[in-house]
Amino acid sequence: MIIGILKEPQDEARVALLPEAVKTLISWKTSVWVESSAGASAYASDQWYQESGGEIHTRKEILEKADLICGIQPLAEAEIGQMKPGAVLMGQLSALFNPKLTDYLIQSGRTAFSMELVPRTTRAQAMDVLSSMATVTGYKAVLMAANLLPRFFPMFMTAAGSITPARVLILGAGVAGLQAIATAKRLGATVYAFDVRQAAKEEVLSLGAKFVDVEGAKEDKSAGGYAVEQSAEYLRKQKDTIHEHATKADVIITTAQIPGRKAPLLVEERTVRAMKAGAVIIDLAASSGGNCALSQPDQTVEVNGVRIVGVGNLAAEMPQDASKMYGKNYLNFLKLIIHNGELKLNFEDDIVTGTCVCHEGKPVSPRIVQMKSA
Amino acid sequence: MIIGILKEPQDEARVALLPEAVKTLISWKTSVWVESSAGASAYASDQWYQESGGEIHTRKEILEKADLICGIQPLAEAEIGQMKPGAVLMGQLSALFNPKLTDYLIQSGRTAFSMELVPRTTRAQAMDVLSSMATVTGYKAVLMAANLLPRFFPMFMTAAGSITPARVLILGAGVAGLQAIATAKRLGATVYAFDVRQAAKEEVLSLGAKFVDVEGAKEDKSAGGYAVEQSAEYLRKQKDTIHEHATKADVIITTAQIPGRKAPLLVEERTVRAMKAGAVIIDLAASSGGNCALSQPDQTVEVNGVRIVGVGNLAAEMPQDASKMYGKNYLNFLKLIIHNGELKLNFEDDIVTGTCVCHEGKPVSPRIVQMKSA
Repeated sequence: MIIGILKEPQDEARVALLPEAVKTLISWKTSVWVESSAGASAYASDQWYQESGGEIHTRKEILEKADLICGIQPLAEAEIGQMKPGAVLMGQLSALFNPKLTDYLIQSGRTAFSMELVPRTTRAQAMDVLSSMATVTGYKAVLMAANLLPRFFPMFMTAAGSITPARVLILGAGVAGLQAIATAKRLGATVYAFDVRQAAKEEVLSLGAKFVDVEGAKEDKSAGGYAVEQSAEYLRKQKDTIHEHATKADVIITTAQIPGRKAPLLVEERTVRAMKAGAVIIDLAASSGGNCALSQPDQTVEVNGVRIVGVGNLAAEMPQDASKMYGKNYLNFLKLIIHNGELKLNFEDDIVTGTCVCHEGKPVSPRIVQMKSA
Repeated sequence: MIIGILKEPQDEARVALLPEAVKTLISWKTSVWVESSAGASAYASDQWYQESGGEIHTRKEILEKADLICGIQPLAEAEIGQMKPGAVLMGQLSALFNPKLTDYLIQSGRTAFSMELVPRTTRAQAMDVLSSMATVTGYKAVLMAANLLPRFFPMFMTAAGSITPARVLILGAGVAGLQAIATAKRLGATVYAFDVRQAAKEEVLSLGAKFVDVEGAKEDKSAGGYAVEQSAEYLRKQKDTIHEHATKADVIITTAQIPGRKAPLLVEERTVRAMKAGAVIIDLAASSGGNCALSQPDQTVEVNGVRIVGVGNLAAEMPQDASKMYGKNYLNFLKLIIHNGELKLNFEDDIVTGTCVCHEGKPVSPRIVQMKSA
């Protein structure tokens, strides 16, 4: 079988499979076709792909001949149309939130897998791109904040007096939030973290941060580790508590997202206006509405000396290790569907089924089936 | 007496004295006049200066009325000319390397102090702006590198495989180099450091970094902690050793400077070309010729996927804490020349004498006297 790796769109610096992953695929008796400069922005040259056993082909050849195309960003419909019948498309297709593409894939009889659908189970953890990319994002968010802050993160006792540590507030203690906590602690900051899920408290404390408690949150264990919607009374109490902590903070990093919904508003305009001049807010939920009232996607806004950075695809800003982790997730998944160098889709496997958007004209993943029947 | 704080030039975000330092000066029975928005780029508002006891005045008023002007970047000659007779100018005037300004100050009969002339003695350590700003620079250089690197600094053992720590090479283990080592270690990198001075070895090891040894260096204890010029044979051996380490490095931070001379060339072009794609070089000596053959002052150059950042005034990129430390250095010095709210220049004090460029038409600091008689 031929596995194809295409160059991602202009604004995506990652590549789904680095040469090291290609080497593994070759050892599985597959052929790997790579579009020229597919890895360039992740610092992986064509030569390196070739040395790892890949072949350089044109985009057209790959689209027409590959049995499986592994990417990150979704392909345009016109290009999906060029794929040969029965070929499989894989990527991070946002299948639940991009109904137009999902409908097109179903109606055109394509077989497609969408990596963000990987079930959040223990066995599937090694394939979970949302987790691995959140690790990158949490780390990068802190570096970005530390770089922008006009102050030190660590405490200093110097001949020129003492410098107090920066105070960092992390909102949302999922994978990105926990990585942000760990990185801010590494850099010597005093870290506070908030999460509606009480289960997060222990993890926050174990990283050496202080947990910001707001009582009375609803919890839903079936939400796959995500937070759920809350009562108006709780939300008021939550915003007031965050306001109080925000006025003392040098940095706020917000990471709260609810899949498929607008991100919860956690930092109100009055809160930004009450913050210290020079403070920095990194809003990782900016592209889904923002956790901060004043954030704009992919822009930095300054209000009263407080800079609010609306962050988009932060994982792409550390393309080499992000691609390495993405590729490792991919390989762990591909192990389930490649046997003896051939594609074998085993729909008895809940990970294969859970990740499959559609096959032979029908939705497959229970989440896609549910969406289509809703 | 009136102490004046002027707005620094456009490209200088620091301010010599923040409101907190003004408060101390007021408690010493002085008046402090501040130009409007002097602290703006360091996030210190006019209102905050006023609340701390400062008065907002025009630039012209301050130039004409102040008994002492405390700045960072030197003033233009035309503005120095506006100062009242007997008024004292203080700043980081680069008096040893800016002979035109130094001559003007002497010939016009001005009294001027230049903060970089503060003797490198134990008693003067609390006034040493070169040390405090090097602390900022070393910290910022690592953040800049970590932000640019397409990889993580720390090691990760995740479900998506393991990530090896970044390898960082620090060239020059003075104050900036040691701070860079400490910060890179905080972020989890594996750190190697090189310095011609064997005395640096113990400090490097105590920070948990590995010391890169090149035998046969000349040392000169009278150089005030700076490195001295070396033999051709040693320099060859040094470049070869650095070349070998550089090819394995993800990040190189170069900090080697010899006061008043061109910075030593440590990273040759062949070395850059042998480095890994994605690697980052931060050259802190770029403005004095560069430690890397390919660096350009205030520019980022990319060669074979290696980015070389020629850094200028990095301390100004963290203006709040940099200004705080600058101000503390200033206060410690001003304590020596302000008594009961009045200026009293005691030329019996070796710190006052060592820091004074000129007074009543004559050079005062032994280093300026030596320069003028050479």
